[in-house]
Amino acid sequence: MKNIDVINILINHFTRLPGVGYKSAERYAYKIIDADDEFVASFARAMLDVKALVKLCDRCGNFSTDPECAICMRRGIADTICVVRDPKDVIAIEKSGAYGGSYHVLHGVISPLDKKGPDDINLKSLIIRVRDEQITEVIIATNPDIEGEATANYIAALLKPSGVRVTRLAQGLSLGTNLEYVDEVTLGAALKNRTSL
Amino acid sequence: MKNIDVINILINHFTRLPGVGYKSAERYAYKIIDADDEFVASFARAMLDVKALVKLCDRCGNFSTDPECAICMRRGIADTICVVRDPKDVIAIEKSGAYGGSYHVLHGVISPLDKKGPDDINLKSLIIRVRDEQITEVIIATNPDIEGEATANYIAALLKPSGVRVTRLAQGLSLGTNLEYVDEVTLGAALKNRTSL
Repeated sequence: MKNIDVINILINHFTRLPGVGYKSAERYAYKIIDADDEFVASFARAMLDVKALVKLCDRCGNFSTDPECAICMRRGIADTICVVRDPKDVIAIEKSGAYGGSYHVLHGVISPLDKKGPDDINLKSLIIRVRDEQITEVIIATNPDIEGEATANYIAALLKPSGVRVTRLAQGLSLGTNLEYVDEVTLGAALKNRTSL
Repeated sequence: MKNIDVINILINHFTRLPGVGYKSAERYAYKIIDADDEFVASFARAMLDVKALVKLCDRCGNFSTDPECAICMRRGIADTICVVRDPKDVIAIEKSGAYGGSYHVLHGVISPLDKKGPDDINLKSLIIRVRDEQITEVIIATNPDIEGEATANYIAALLKPSGVRVTRLAQGLSLGTNLEYVDEVTLGAALKNRTSL
């Protein structure tokens, strides 16, 4: 029955991935059994490599294999900082091509329900950066949900004494949205922040 | 930019798993980065272990770390063989607790569209087993779809000369089905194979 154990161990590991249930994990494990040796070896290698090589950028907290991440190295000291929750959000904003400044990754948001306070996220170094890098604007790009809004307000209050301009991503309609299905808060914000044509 | 490469390599590996798109693969990769070293090491180990240790049972073709699988070892030579498409199906039937004989795993079905003929599945050894193990019944448990039905009919014709009884899993209503939504083929089969109360 050893074979069942070996496969079950792998299935259990797959179920630890976000959103993966037992059935999916089983399919992934069977795929690994069917895959060629080379693929499985490089898959395992890729996992260990990522874990061993990827650290956090000393400056902005983004993922990096070097002490400073690619964006910080490329752009040097900018005059704006865009504050995001996760490294994933950096990629999303970079893909938009609409921003050319530096980033600051919080690695979480303030969330009393999850027992996450201001000291549990990468916030202290933001204050130091705003002072030392002579930043003129901090754009807070946390998600437009309760925790994201609370974190944005907290950061804005924290930065007030420094005199830096603090902004928040605009709320409004997404491309392709059907007006009928837009929630009232978003529609209210879209009306309030309407732009001239 | 090396960090992006390391992460991308892992994401690309995840996208090779069945049903995993780029966004999911990205989430899995970030989960690996966030996970503790121990988990990632044991995950990679589990993958390599499965690939290195899991072979096919010499007799029935089920997954096994030994030359003979746990079911074949436990049950010895039975008088019925249940023919299934994949090792997953063995687990499903075992879970039902309704069968106590031995299995035969085809590792696929006959599918001209995928260029899979009778020689591409584990079929030859079934004929030999039916003869040598003095089997009295072969239950064909391939899926009730076009390829599964075609494969079942092909195997039945192949086994005809041996005189063994060949049966097929019953088609009918699933537990909890709403009659209104049952397809006509299934409903037809359920009527035809109705049982006395």
